[in-house]
Amino acid sequence: MSTSQILHPDRLFSPIASVRQVARELYQGVQHLPIISPHGHTDPAWFADNLPFSNPAELLIQPDHYVFRMLYSQGVSLESLGIGQSGSALEADPRNVWRIFAHYYYLFQGTPSRLWMDFVLHDVFGITEVLNNDTADSIYDIINTKLALPEYRPRQLFERFNIEVIATTEQPLDNLAHHKKIQNSAWQGRVITAFRPDNVLDPEFIGFANNIQQLGELTNCDTQDYTKYLEALKIRRQYFIAHGATSSDHGHVSACTADLSDLNARALFAKAMTGTITSDEAEIFRGHMLTQMAQMSIEDGLVMQLHAGCYRNHNPQVLTQFGRDKGADLPLPNEFVHNLKPLLDKFGNSTDLSLILFTLDETTYSRELAPLAGHYPALKLGPAWWFHDSPEGMKRFRQQTMETAGFYNTVGFNDDTRAFLSIPARHDVARRVDCNFLAELICEHRITETQGHELAYDLSYRLAKEAYRL
Amino acid sequence: MSTSQILHPDRLFSPIASVRQVARELYQGVQHLPIISPHGHTDPAWFADNLPFSNPAELLIQPDHYVFRMLYSQGVSLESLGIGQSGSALEADPRNVWRIFAHYYYLFQGTPSRLWMDFVLHDVFGITEVLNNDTADSIYDIINTKLALPEYRPRQLFERFNIEVIATTEQPLDNLAHHKKIQNSAWQGRVITAFRPDNVLDPEFIGFANNIQQLGELTNCDTQDYTKYLEALKIRRQYFIAHGATSSDHGHVSACTADLSDLNARALFAKAMTGTITSDEAEIFRGHMLTQMAQMSIEDGLVMQLHAGCYRNHNPQVLTQFGRDKGADLPLPNEFVHNLKPLLDKFGNSTDLSLILFTLDETTYSRELAPLAGHYPALKLGPAWWFHDSPEGMKRFRQQTMETAGFYNTVGFNDDTRAFLSIPARHDVARRVDCNFLAELICEHRITETQGHELAYDLSYRLAKEAYRL
Amino acid sequence: MSTSQILHPDRLFSPIASVRQVARELYQGVQHLPIISPHGHTDPAWFADNLPFSNPAELLIQPDHYVFRMLYSQGVSLESLGIGQSGSALEADPRNVWRIFAHYYYLFQGTPSRLWMDFVLHDVFGITEVLNNDTADSIYDIINTKLALPEYRPRQLFERFNIEVIATTEQPLDNLAHHKKIQNSAWQGRVITAFRPDNVLDPEFIGFANNIQQLGELTNCDTQDYTKYLEALKIRRQYFIAHGATSSDHGHVSACTADLSDLNARALFAKAMTGTITSDEAEIFRGHMLTQMAQMSIEDGLVMQLHAGCYRNHNPQVLTQFGRDKGADLPLPNEFVHNLKPLLDKFGNSTDLSLILFTLDETTYSRELAPLAGHYPALKLGPAWWFHDSPEGMKRFRQQTMETAGFYNTVGFNDDTRAFLSIPARHDVARRVDCNFLAELICEHRITETQGHELAYDLSYRLAKEAYRL
Repeated sequence: MSTSQILHPDRLFSPIASVRQVARELYQGVQHLPIISPHGHTDPAWFADNLPFSNPAELLIQPDHYVFRMLYSQGVSLESLGIGQSGSALEADPRNVWRIFAHYYYLFQGTPSRLWMDFVLHDVFGITEVLNNDTADSIYDIINTKLALPEYRPRQLFERFNIEVIATTEQPLDNLAHHKKIQNSAWQGRVITAFRPDNVLDPEFIGFANNIQQLGELTNCDTQDYTKYLEALKIRRQYFIAHGATSSDHGHVSACTADLSDLNARALFAKAMTGTITSDEAEIFRGHMLTQMAQMSIEDGLVMQLHAGCYRNHNPQVLTQFGRDKGADLPLPNEFVHNLKPLLDKFGNSTDLSLILFTLDETTYSRELAPLAGHYPALKLGPAWWFHDSPEGMKRFRQQTMETAGFYNTVGFNDDTRAFLSIPARHDVARRVDCNFLAELICEHRITETQGHELAYDLSYRLAKEAYRL
Repeated sequence: MSTSQILHPDRLFSPIASVRQVARELYQGVQHLPIISPHGHTDPAWFADNLPFSNPAELLIQPDHYVFRMLYSQGVSLESLGIGQSGSALEADPRNVWRIFAHYYYLFQGTPSRLWMDFVLHDVFGITEVLNNDTADSIYDIINTKLALPEYRPRQLFERFNIEVIATTEQPLDNLAHHKKIQNSAWQGRVITAFRPDNVLDPEFIGFANNIQQLGELTNCDTQDYTKYLEALKIRRQYFIAHGATSSDHGHVSACTADLSDLNARALFAKAMTGTITSDEAEIFRGHMLTQMAQMSIEDGLVMQLHAGCYRNHNPQVLTQFGRDKGADLPLPNEFVHNLKPLLDKFGNSTDLSLILFTLDETTYSRELAPLAGHYPALKLGPAWWFHDSPEGMKRFRQQTMETAGFYNTVGFNDDTRAFLSIPARHDVARRVDCNFLAELICEHRITETQGHELAYDLSYRLAKEAYRL
Repeated sequence: MSTSQILHPDRLFSPIASVRQVARELYQGVQHLPIISPHGHTDPAWFADNLPFSNPAELLIQPDHYVFRMLYSQGVSLESLGIGQSGSALEADPRNVWRIFAHYYYLFQGTPSRLWMDFVLHDVFGITEVLNNDTADSIYDIINTKLALPEYRPRQLFERFNIEVIATTEQPLDNLAHHKKIQNSAWQGRVITAFRPDNVLDPEFIGFANNIQQLGELTNCDTQDYTKYLEALKIRRQYFIAHGATSSDHGHVSACTADLSDLNARALFAKAMTGTITSDEAEIFRGHMLTQMAQMSIEDGLVMQLHAGCYRNHNPQVLTQFGRDKGADLPLPNEFVHNLKPLLDKFGNSTDLSLILFTLDETTYSRELAPLAGHYPALKLGPAWWFHDSPEGMKRFRQQTMETAGFYNTVGFNDDTRAFLSIPARHDVARRVDCNFLAELICEHRITETQGHELAYDLSYRLAKEAYRL
C-alpha cells in the first residue's frame, strides 16, 4: 500500500519482534490521547483570527529554522528560500521555494525534520508520495488547495489535532490581545500564554532600560526604583495568569543563579538602567533575578522553566542580513551544580516551587541533572530539548536520566515549536520513542507490562498536565 | 508462577533470542561464583558481634541514601522516614516508614534501587509479591519475623551470600577493634579493612589538625613535623595491613596531584596545621599527598584507589538538619590528563604501583580514562561508580572504555555499598549486564564464545581478586 | 569451516535477523568499492621504491602504537618489543617480538586493533588459525615467507587492496622526492601528498625559527618578514598541489582561531622568530594562521582539515627513552563554538572553503560539531577519529551527529593510519558499521531501503571523494 512509502505504521519501533509487539500495544494505548502542549512558540493570532494559512513555503519552510539551516549548510542561499528581513521587498516565488526544498529533501534523511515533515504531508494533507523533484509540484498543489478549505483553518486543525491545551510564549510587555480575543470568543479551544521575561530581566538584552520604562507604564509603577521594578513584575505575572499562564520561561546563556543583598541588587539594577553594568555583573544580576522569580513562583504558583546554554545568533553575517533566529544558534557547555546553588540553597527544599530544567549539553544529563532532580524537591527535568528533540536524543535522555532521577522527576513531552502543523508529528514521535523504550524495559524484565502501560500514559499525558498545573 | 512477578530469571538479558541464549549460558557459568567485594562500606561490627538486624525500615530504608533521596525528591519528608541526626529523640514507627516506602515504590521503576530491592525481597526473604500499599504490611511481617531467625544473622548471611572476602573502609584513627574481634574469633569469614586517610590528608577536612594530633598519639610520632607525619602514615598503613588491608582509598573533590619539593610540602603542612592554608594551597597539598601515597603504595604494596569528583552535602538545610550522607552529593566535571600528570611523571611507568581510578563524570571514560589506562602500566579503571552502578551505566562504561583500554585494564566489579543485604543483588546485576554485553559481542562475532566464557569469569571474579591482591 | 574462527562473514552485523539481512545486502553493494584514503600516514617511500617489507614484527607491531601501547599498559617493556630510539643499537629478535605479541593477543579482545589484525592475518596472509602461543611460530613463518613474494610488495598490495587514491601527509619542508618518483614512474597507482604545516605555523614547535629559515630558502622568500612568510607558504602549497595534494591538515592542541590585524600578526611573528613569544601569544598566532590558511584555501582550493585536542607525548620517561609517537598521546576536552568564531566570522559563509573538523572529545559531537556543521556552509565533519575509529566509536558518531548535521555534512571514512596492511581492514570495519547502522534505520522505518543503498554508497565512497576533491 502506498502510504507505507512515507509513513510506516511501525516506524521508530524496534526491529526485535517481541519488543515491537509490546511497543505497538503500549502505543495503541496512548496514540489518541489529547495533546498537552505546555511550552511552545505558536502564534496566538492564528487562533484569535482563524484566517487561512497562505502557502506551503510560508507555512512549512520559511518559519522553520530546522529546515532552512540544513539547506543553508549545504550552500542553498537564504534569499532563494524567500527568507529575508521582515519588511524586505524581495520575495521568492513560493512554488520555487518549495521546489528547492523538494530537490534537497534527501539531505534530511535521518533527521527529525524529515520524520515530522513526512507526518505532516501524510497525516495532515493526505499525501502518499515521497517528496522529490518529480512530485514537488503536485504536492505543492495539493497542500495549496487544502489550505483554502475551512477545515484547514487554525482552530479547525487545533481541534482535529486533539489539542487539550496549548501554551504560547509572550514577553511581559505584550498586551496579550490575541489571548484576550480567544478568551472572549465562543471558541472553546484552550490557548494560554506563558511568561517569558528575558527582555526585562537581562541587562544585556537590547533595549533593556527602555523595556523597564515600558514595564513601568503598563503597571503604573516607577520602575526606576528596584523595589517598584519587582512590584511591576509581580503585577505583570498576575496579568499573564489572568490570561491563562501557568508557567514562566527563562532563556539564559548559563544557569547562573545568585542571591544578592537588597543593597547589591539595587546597585546592579541602577547600573543596568544606565547601561554601565559589566558583563560579569549582568550575569550576576540575571542570576539574582532568577532567584527572585523563584520567590514569586512560590507566591503566585507559576511553574518555572529554565532553558540554559545557547549561543544565539553566532553568525554575524546572517544576523545582519536576515535577522535573529535564522538557524545560527549553537549549544554551549552547561554547569548546574554550582550555578544553581544560590537558588537551591534558598528554595531547593520547597515543595511549592517547581523549577523545570532544560539543557542542550547532554553531558549534564547523568552527571548533574539526574542527580539534582533525584534529590531536590523543587527540581524537575524537562524533556530532551531542541537539537535533542529527536529519536536518538530522546533515547539518550531516558538512558541517562532514568536510573538516577526515575521517570517521575521528568515532566513528559513538550514540542517547543512554532511549526503548528508539526505538533501532532512531534508528539507522535515522542510517544513512539517512549513506548519503544518502555517496551525494551519490559522485554528485558526491568519493568512489568502493567507498569509499562501506566508509564506510557504518564509520559504521554499525565506528567505534562500535572507538572505544568494544567 | 508467582516468582516471575518480581524477579524474572532472564532479567537484564537482551530480548534478541540468540543473544539471550548466549547470555544465559555465560551467566550460568558465573552466577554461583564466590563474591569478591574489595571496596565497600559495610559495618564490621555486624560481623564482629553477629547480632540480629532490627527491623525492615532500619535495615533497608534508613541507611540507603539511594532510596530516601528519591522519596525526598518527590516531597516525602526525611522526618517521616525516621531519618534524623544521630541521637535524635524523635523516632518514626518502622512499620509506618515501610508503608510510606511501599506507597512510593513505583517511583523506583527503571532504577537500580528497584532491581536490588526486588532481589533482596525475593532471594533473601522469599517474597513473591510486588511491594505496594496492599502488600506492605504482610511483607513487613515476613521480613521482621525472618530477621529474628539465626540464619539471618550477619555471619550466616555472609556465608549464604558466598562472600569469599569483603573489605570495609576505615579511617586511619580507627582502632579496628571489630576487625580484631573477627580475626580473633573462630569464624572463618574474611572481613578486611581498607585504608581511607582523607581526614588526615585533606587540610580542609573538619578537624584536620586535631586528627593529625591523634595520629601522632596513635603512632608515637611527633606529627607536628612533616617528616614524622609521613612516618606516622606509614606506621598506620602497616597497622591496617596487619588487619587485612590490601588497598587504600582516596575520596577527593578533584584528581589533582602534585609533587612538591620537601621545602614546599613542609610549608603547606605547617599552614594546614595552623589553619592558615588557602583553598588553592589545600588542593595542592592534597595532590602532593596522593603522590606520597603512591610512593608508599610502591613500598608496602597497598593498591591505591581514587574516587574523585563529588560535591558532598550540597544541600545546607539537609546537612544542618540531618547530617552528612543524606543523598545531597552531586557529581562534578572531572579532569585527569593534566591532574594526574605529576603523579604519573613520577610513578606512571611503575609496574609495582596499581592506581585504580573511579569517576562520576562519564565524559572522561572515552576521552581520558580509557586512553590513560590503555597506556600507563600503573593505571587501572574501577567499575562504573555510584550513580552509574546500574545497567545503563555499566553498559556505557563498557562501550566507552573497552575499545581503547580493553577488558584487562579494568578490575571487575565492586559494590561500594553499606547496604549489606543488597550485595548479592548488586553483583548479580553486574554479572548479568556483563554477560549480556559479552553475549552481544559474541553474536556480532567480535569475540568467540570461548573468549566470552573466559571474560565472564574474569569480570565476575578473577580481575577483582587479582587487582586488589586478594 | 576454519575461517570463521577468526573472521566471521557477518561480523559487526546485528544479531537481529531482519537487520542482519538488510545489513548484508547493503554491504554487498559496497564491499568491493575502491578505497578512497584521503587522509593517512603511510610512507610514500614504500610506493616509490617498492621494496619488500622486512618481517612480521617490523611490519605489524613496531610501527603500530595502538598495539604496543596496550602491551605496555600491561607491563610489557618497549625494549622487549624492539622499540627504541631510531638508530638504537639494541635490537630485539623479530620472532621473539612476535611471540610476545601472540602471548598477549588476548588483551586486544573487544578492541579495533584485534579486528584489524585478524583481517590482515586472514585476508592478506590467508591465515585461518587464531594467533596465540601455540600458533605464533607457524603464523610468523607464513607471513615471513609471503613478504618475500613479489605480490606482497607495496605496489602490488596497493592494487590488490583496490585503492583508487591514497594521500600521505608531509610537512612543508619535505621535498616530496618519493611522490616525484612515483609520478615519474610507469606505475599508475595514485599516491598524493597532503600539506601539514604545523612545524611552520606553530611557534612552539621544536625548531620553529629554523624551519621558517628553511622555508625561506626553499621558496626564495625572505621569511624573516611576515608578508614574505605568507608568500612562502602559498608557494609551498602550490608545490604540494603540483604533487597531488588536495588538502591541508592541521594538528593543533585546541581549535582556537584568531584574526589579527596585520600589525599584531607581524608583532607576534617577530616574537615567535626570536623565541620570546609567550604560550598564550603562541596560541593566538596559531589561531591566526588557521584563518590565514582558510584564506589560502579559498584561493588555491585545498580542502582544510583540523585535528584538534591531543596532548602529545604525555609520558616524559617514554619520550626521553623512546621518542615521540609511542602511545602516550591523550585526548583533551575541546571547544569549538567560541574557538572557531573568528575564522567563521570571516569565512564560515563561504561555499569555496571546506573545513573538515575532527575531535577526540565526543561530548562535542552533539553539543557543538553537529550544530555547527548543520549551519555553516564552510564546515563538514570528519569521521570518528583515532581512539573512536572503532565500531562503538563510529556508532556513537552517527547517533550523535546524524539528527542535527544529517549524513551529507559528513565526509565518509578515512583510515588515518601508518599501518598500510590494515587499510582494507579499517575501511571494511567502517563499511560494515555504517551498513549495519543504516540497516537499523531501515528496519525501524526511518529511511527506506532505496535511500539506505544510496547512503551506503555515499558513506563508503562518494562523500570522501567529493569532500576531498579527488
